[in-house]
Amino acid sequence: MKIGIAGIAGRMGTLLAEEVEAAGATLAGGTRRGDDARALFAASDVVIDFTHAHAAAAHAALAAETGKGLVLGSSGLSAEEEAAVAEAAKRAPIVYAANFATGVNLVIALAEKLAAALPGAQYDAEIVEMHHRRKVDAPSGTAVAIGRAVARGRGTTLEQAGRESGRDGHTGARGTGTIGFAALRGGQVVGEHTLLFAAGSEHIALTHRSFDRRAYATGAVRAALWLQGRNPGLYSMNDVLGL
Amino acid sequence: MKIGIAGIAGRMGTLLAEEVEAAGATLAGGTRRGDDARALFAASDVVIDFTHAHAAAAHAALAAETGKGLVLGSSGLSAEEEAAVAEAAKRAPIVYAANFATGVNLVIALAEKLAAALPGAQYDAEIVEMHHRRKVDAPSGTAVAIGRAVARGRGTTLEQAGRESGRDGHTGARGTGTIGFAALRGGQVVGEHTLLFAAGSEHIALTHRSFDRRAYATGAVRAALWLQGRNPGLYSMNDVLGL
Amino acid sequence: MKIGIAGIAGRMGTLLAEEVEAAGATLAGGTRRGDDARALFAASDVVIDFTHAHAAAAHAALAAETGKGLVLGSSGLSAEEEAAVAEAAKRAPIVYAANFATGVNLVIALAEKLAAALPGAQYDAEIVEMHHRRKVDAPSGTAVAIGRAVARGRGTTLEQAGRESGRDGHTGARGTGTIGFAALRGGQVVGEHTLLFAAGSEHIALTHRSFDRRAYATGAVRAALWLQGRNPGLYSMNDVLGL
Amino acid sequence: MKIGIAGIAGRMGTLLAEEVEAAGATLAGGTRRGDDARALFAASDVVIDFTHAHAAAAHAALAAETGKGLVLGSSGLSAEEEAAVAEAAKRAPIVYAANFATGVNLVIALAEKLAAALPGAQYDAEIVEMHHRRKVDAPSGTAVAIGRAVARGRGTTLEQAGRESGRDGHTGARGTGTIGFAALRGGQVVGEHTLLFAAGSEHIALTHRSFDRRAYATGAVRAALWLQGRNPGLYSMNDVLGL
Repeated sequence: MKIGIAGIAGRMGTLLAEEVEAAGATLAGGTRRGDDARALFAASDVVIDFTHAHAAAAHAALAAETGKGLVLGSSGLSAEEEAAVAEAAKRAPIVYAANFATGVNLVIALAEKLAAALPGAQYDAEIVEMHHRRKVDAPSGTAVAIGRAVARGRGTTLEQAGRESGRDGHTGARGTGTIGFAALRGGQVVGEHTLLFAAGSEHIALTHRSFDRRAYATGAVRAALWLQGRNPGLYSMNDVLGL
Repeated sequence: MKIGIAGIAGRMGTLLAEEVEAAGATLAGGTRRGDDARALFAASDVVIDFTHAHAAAAHAALAAETGKGLVLGSSGLSAEEEAAVAEAAKRAPIVYAANFATGVNLVIALAEKLAAALPGAQYDAEIVEMHHRRKVDAPSGTAVAIGRAVARGRGTTLEQAGRESGRDGHTGARGTGTIGFAALRGGQVVGEHTLLFAAGSEHIALTHRSFDRRAYATGAVRAALWLQGRNPGLYSMNDVLGL
Repeated sequence: MKIGIAGIAGRMGTLLAEEVEAAGATLAGGTRRGDDARALFAASDVVIDFTHAHAAAAHAALAAETGKGLVLGSSGLSAEEEAAVAEAAKRAPIVYAANFATGVNLVIALAEKLAAALPGAQYDAEIVEMHHRRKVDAPSGTAVAIGRAVARGRGTTLEQAGRESGRDGHTGARGTGTIGFAALRGGQVVGEHTLLFAAGSEHIALTHRSFDRRAYATGAVRAALWLQGRNPGLYSMNDVLGL
Repeated sequence: MKIGIAGIAGRMGTLLAEEVEAAGATLAGGTRRGDDARALFAASDVVIDFTHAHAAAAHAALAAETGKGLVLGSSGLSAEEEAAVAEAAKRAPIVYAANFATGVNLVIALAEKLAAALPGAQYDAEIVEMHHRRKVDAPSGTAVAIGRAVARGRGTTLEQAGRESGRDGHTGARGTGTIGFAALRGGQVVGEHTLLFAAGSEHIALTHRSFDRRAYATGAVRAALWLQGRNPGLYSMNDVLGL
């Protein structure tokens, strides 16, 4: 299988190229800033693109035109750009995800299942995340995604369930069914997330720890391999992972 | 809904009675050692039985005869006794499980899903359990059940995957795809289990902590409530929990 | 050794009486609301008092008068009441502490030692606590006491070091040398505290988990036994524990 | 301050050179395989040596001859080589340690203090370690060092206290006062150690996680800076860290 990489010269591109090799696939080539991606699509079975939101629509269109697979990892797409990707997915198989780390996607998928089985009246859901000392906002996007999955599992939304984030001072008792968030900062932590369901007689916790960004590259290559022989369609990492 | 309790005078019976009340159901009565269970089945919609393996077949037969539900939590049934239960389940709805704690069943069910998504060649599966200082064997039955679920998720068995339990001395490198077990003992710990999948760039862990035996009673009453209006059949806690 | 208990009829008094017995000491008796404590001091080698701040000064005076030991666990003493206790301690040996749980005192003492050895420029100190869902304020008093110990170990105060508590929203990067706090709420957790020092290449964590209030009674009886044969003076749990 | 590095071309030498620079000290130079170390000692205030046990005696002798400081991190010295180092330490200040990671030394020092305060009859001591999948023995040397510190704190030895390592099968109840060991293997874990004291009403845990070997280099440079102006003597990392 031949895999091409858009933006092969960047940090993520380097990791992707290494992971293509580690997976035993063939590196079909890559684009650098300013290159035309058309040749890359022609030479590849699947193209992986982690470059920039603004390149997404054009790459999706090339996938549709050539019928090649596309693994799209850019974030921050506008509604218009997302619509263009969805349109292209009618003619090419595309995996589009906010986070390609296998474990993060698993945790989000399982968070929903756990929440569906553990009623909010008995099981208090709390999410703790830790990141390096330079992170400037809290809670992390992944923590919020886990919280949304918990709410979904309980047939509600995070907004309706209620978010208790950053408790400090006189907070009052915990609200029943709410979802709690706490943020730790320190060292060089790439990312740690724990979802805890706490009842009086038992606790269930699900934890994910990221050690390097390579996990994103590994997941993207896994998605590329999974695309081989797929019908056109817009797929998520849940599809790839069979969750 | 009317719930009856076989062996209501014991420690588990007391917890069950409290949980029936806490759930807002009606306690239909209970048997003590030597009582005839026939009257209890007549007065109940569902009977919960945690008494003894030897009572299982007789209680299952009464369920079949009366068409009432049965929640069966005894362990150590012989093959013959299990066959009798299965036969009775053709005419009555029966939930039969080794462990009724919601969280333990969730952990076992999710262990299989995690293992199916996390290839053994990259993700080393390790199971750590902790119990009080009086426990005389290792690893715990629940730890082994988690290990079997991991193997199942990977399309194999614990025996074929290989079990690395109690590492000590010159162990050699970890075997690829094997499942590791470690046992801690101390204090009054009711039961803690952690399943860890460790890859180079990420770790995913699932932890369960039991604080008291009430969790078993809570789960059994939940199963009883779930049985209302069910068709005859032999159900597991996975069915009850929708896993 | 004869130990008397002020307020023996309360929940804490009951635990204290049980722990006196478990330690193999003699229960010299106890007072109930309205009783005169003079007879109790006469009959005891040491009196344990967890009743109320307002009783502290009177009990300390009785200890001074009789030369008997006093273990004082009431909280919320006024400056005047604390001065009266200190004055009494010139004639009787008194252990006075905010928290008698052995482990909590150890954690606070070791927090200071850790902080003295781990420079704030490299090691970010974060404190996470979890308590039951009914707790109405955050962070817990014990968490703050741990934070003060960290500051002390670094030759500063919590106020000067800076407290980052309850991160939420746009927080900016972590301040160097600050001390972070995060609060989880859920289930029936009696109390869990973790102090984490996070540097790029290593993390050191110290965790305390309380399972029941008995730990306070156990520590108080330990203090009472330690008082036997001591000279007059005002002692802390650090003295009792030899920290 | 001028710091020289024996074996500057190796992986550890590279880290040491980077850490010397990061600490704001002057790199006085380094030796490569076959170089005479005499010039290095002449040019340095302190020399750091992580090369090989067989070089230790010669380097210590050069330190004694020149009165320069030596930080010695080689392991596996024979009794004779250790005696030569001790002899040299009469004329030069030498820090000699098995492990220079600040956190590991802290954990070992605090393990002893914790054990002294937490009686073995009530607090069961358990040590869990995790390392990468290629490690061939268990428990780790650091885990055993922690166990020895626990025994020391309790006024005994690990051999006398009893070691329960690698529980599997019919183990019988936990022995009072024994020290338990459990080993996990997986992924690329550099090293994680947890010492847990478990009593019925509270648990105290001390955890160390290493993320890269740089921690050893950081500690060694810290020891070198600490040596400035010291009298001759054989020092440990406990001395450096003020434990």
